[in-house]
Amino acid sequence: MKTIEDLNKIMNFFYEIDGLKRVFRRTKITNEDRFENDAEHSFHVAVMAIILRDFFDDSYGEIDELKAIKMLLMHDAVELYAGDTYCYDEKAGLDKFEREIKAADELFGLLPNELGEELKSLWLEFDEEKTTNAKFAAFMDKLQPLLLNYKNEGLSWIENNVTKSMVLKRMKNAIDFAPETLLLYINNMIDDCVERRWLIDK
Amino acid sequence: MKTIEDLNKIMNFFYEIDGLKRVFRRTKITNEDRFENDAEHSFHVAVMAIILRDFFDDSYGEIDELKAIKMLLMHDAVELYAGDTYCYDEKAGLDKFEREIKAADELFGLLPNELGEELKSLWLEFDEEKTTNAKFAAFMDKLQPLLLNYKNEGLSWIENNVTKSMVLKRMKNAIDFAPETLLLYINNMIDDCVERRWLIDK
Repeated sequence: MKTIEDLNKIMNFFYEIDGLKRVFRRTKITNEDRFENDAEHSFHVAVMAIILRDFFDDSYGEIDELKAIKMLLMHDAVELYAGDTYCYDEKAGLDKFEREIKAADELFGLLPNELGEELKSLWLEFDEEKTTNAKFAAFMDKLQPLLLNYKNEGLSWIENNVTKSMVLKRMKNAIDFAPETLLLYINNMIDDCVERRWLIDK
Repeated sequence: MKTIEDLNKIMNFFYEIDGLKRVFRRTKITNEDRFENDAEHSFHVAVMAIILRDFFDDSYGEIDELKAIKMLLMHDAVELYAGDTYCYDEKAGLDKFEREIKAADELFGLLPNELGEELKSLWLEFDEEKTTNAKFAAFMDKLQPLLLNYKNEGLSWIENNVTKSMVLKRMKNAIDFAPETLLLYINNMIDDCVERRWLIDK
């Protein structure tokens, strides 16, 4: 895995993922009226994982921080070809996996075999959300848009008629996995959003 | 480091680094006429580190991949307060460290003590570029804008009258540290840029 031919494939992959700076999510960044892109989101959740790591002790199972961060950096890469699926769009969610696995084959297939397989299996592990590492990583992925929506006074929730129960359903795995302090924080934040009418109370 | 008070500080830090999506660099992303921001750049270099890791064998000293990725995710965070300093602006470079260390104190000071100290020391280690981890991380930071400029046909080099010798000076540490295959790739790319007149030949 150290030839010029491999390097050509790798550099091509680097050019390709530059495109994640042009794939937009439904959440807006703070202090500016524009949607967040996948590269920015992936950066943000990876930093959150580094910083929140110590809130998760051994009772959650062993967390391999490096693996979790790799997952977070790659978790949305397939959206390059599959597009962003809004988490509250049930219809688009129906064929999400099918579209994304096809995209994963295409994207990670650009890389030298072994490397492509490694990243594809990390992406799959994240997507299945079964292992401790995937749950830890997915927690960050679920918490981050909550933070942006909170700071933006419910902006994209209001625009999309999102209710408290939709958020709780979306956050279920994260809430089940959350350490006590983080759970308290999240519940307080959601209650506050309802009280301020940033989130519909049903 | 697990109290609600700590969590308030941490969440405040997460809101603050959202601002990196609004700090712009001098390099443009591909396929769109706009500057890249620090969050996008940090994402891109962290992915590059994951993928190029295996090109660096033990002869480079031991590389702690997790530490290097943490450095890359945090290496530009101080630009939140210190702004982006264009690497070919010698005048702005003069007080860069002074501005950035002040910004580092301010930014990492938002976090609970121990965590803030850890991230500040990672930032410093990267900035000094002396350890193997810092050199490995800095290699990605230097290579990435080269790739964007190559794909963009020298766009920001042409706009800023950048010469081959300026790029080589800027890349010196990266070139000294580069494994043979990567060095060959980089030298070919730079020569090609000169030939295509994307980079001034002097």
